[in-house]
Amino acid sequence: MTIEVWSWPTPNGHKVHITLEELELPYRIVPVNIGKGEQFRPEFLAINPNHRIPAIVDPEGPDGRTVSLFESGAILIYLAEKAGRLLPADPVDRYTALQWLMFQMGGVGPMFGQYNHFAAYAPEKIPYAIDRYGNEVKRLHNVLEKRLAESAYLAGDEYSIADIATFPWVRNPDRRGIDLGEYPAVRRWHDAIAARPAVQRGVAVLSGNQRSGPMSEAERELLFGKTQYQRR
Amino acid sequence: MTIEVWSWPTPNGHKVHITLEELELPYRIVPVNIGKGEQFRPEFLAINPNHRIPAIVDPEGPDGRTVSLFESGAILIYLAEKAGRLLPADPVDRYTALQWLMFQMGGVGPMFGQYNHFAAYAPEKIPYAIDRYGNEVKRLHNVLEKRLAESAYLAGDEYSIADIATFPWVRNPDRRGIDLGEYPAVRRWHDAIAARPAVQRGVAVLSGNQRSGPMSEAERELLFGKTQYQRR
Repeated sequence: MTIEVWSWPTPNGHKVHITLEELELPYRIVPVNIGKGEQFRPEFLAINPNHRIPAIVDPEGPDGRTVSLFESGAILIYLAEKAGRLLPADPVDRYTALQWLMFQMGGVGPMFGQYNHFAAYAPEKIPYAIDRYGNEVKRLHNVLEKRLAESAYLAGDEYSIADIATFPWVRNPDRRGIDLGEYPAVRRWHDAIAARPAVQRGVAVLSGNQRSGPMSEAERELLFGKTQYQRR
Repeated sequence: MTIEVWSWPTPNGHKVHITLEELELPYRIVPVNIGKGEQFRPEFLAINPNHRIPAIVDPEGPDGRTVSLFESGAILIYLAEKAGRLLPADPVDRYTALQWLMFQMGGVGPMFGQYNHFAAYAPEKIPYAIDRYGNEVKRLHNVLEKRLAESAYLAGDEYSIADIATFPWVRNPDRRGIDLGEYPAVRRWHDAIAARPAVQRGVAVLSGNQRSGPMSEAERELLFGKTQYQRR
C-alpha cells in the first residue's frame, strides 16, 4: 500500500524522497506549500503539531497498523527498518550510522539552516550572526572531511541513511559559501551520491516548486513571523 | 564492565548520566572541561572528531566488541537497546519515541542553545537574534504542551529516552525566560521526572563544575572563537 508523504522540496523533504526512491517503496506526495502557510492547516497539524515537513502516514506499519510519523530522522530509521536496507546489518556499524544521522539532525541541519536564515532570509544583515553560522558551516564540513577521508561513507563501507540525511545539506555548496575543492573527500562522497539514479529521482520530487529569488514579506511572516509563534 | 563516559555537566551530558542511572549500568566519568579546551585534546578527538561532549566507550558492546560513540541521541538509543529498557517494546510506540527524540535533537537542543548563546554568551546584544530564538523557545514549549496535554510522556504512557533527552533542556526554565505556569502539562511532566531518584543522581554528576556567572574572554574563545573553527 502507498505511503502518504506530506512534503515540500527542502533538504528535509529531499531526505525522505531519496530514501523512498532508494528503497523502491510506493508513495504518494501530498504537497505542503510552506510559503503559502499550508503547514498550519488542521489536517497537517493533526499529523505534526510542530508544523514542519516532512511527515508520513503508512497504512501498512508493523502488524498491519498505521504509522504516522514526523521528524525526518525518525522517518528515515522507520523506512530503513521497514525495508531492511540502508542501515548496516552489523550491530556496531548500525550505531555508527545512527551516530552520523544524529550529527546531521543536531548539527548540520540546524546550523546550516541558521546560516541560510541570516545570510539569505533575515530582513537585516547582522555580521556577527552571519560570521557565527558561516564559521560553523565550515567547521562541520571539516568534520565531514575528516570522516570521509578515512571512510567511503559516513557509517563505513556502506551507503546508509546517514549519507542520505546529509547529502541534501551538502549539495549546492555555493549557496552557503562553500567550495568543495577545499574538501576533496566530501566532494568524492558528494559526487558518488549525486550520481545515483534514485538520488536524482528523489531531488526531482516537487522540484518545480523550489523557491528562489528574494523572500516576500508574506513568506517571511509565514516562515519566521508571528504566524509561526502563535499557540495552536 | 564499566562504560567510559567522556562528559561535562551540560544538558547533553546530563542526558547520558540520567540514562545510565536509570538503567543502573556501571560507568566511569572522564571529565572533559570544555571551558578549558579539553575537548581539543587528541585523546578526545580520536573518539569524537566533532569535539563535543558526551561520548562513550563501552568495552562490552554487541558480540563483546567495543563500541565508541558520540552524539547524545545515538548514545541514548544504544544504552536503551543494550539494557532493553527506556524504549517502548511495542514497535509503533518505539517509532513515536524516536520521533520525539529527534524533535529534541533537531529542535529543542539546537534552538535553546542558540537562545543561550545570544541571551547570555555573545559579546554583543543583538535584539533580532534574541527575539528570534526566544520566540522559538516558546514555540517549542507550545508543541511540548500540546503533546503532553494528551499523553503522560512524550512517547505515550511510558517514560522513555525521549523524555530523558528533553528534560535537561526544560529544567531551570527561568534561564530561558520561560514560566512553566504557562505550560501546565509541561510542568506536570517536568515535576514527575525531576522527582525520580535516578534523575536526581544523573543531574548531580559533575555538578560542582557547572559554569555560572559571566563568561570570560578565554572561555568565549574556546567555545565560540577561532579555536573552535580551526581544521583538525
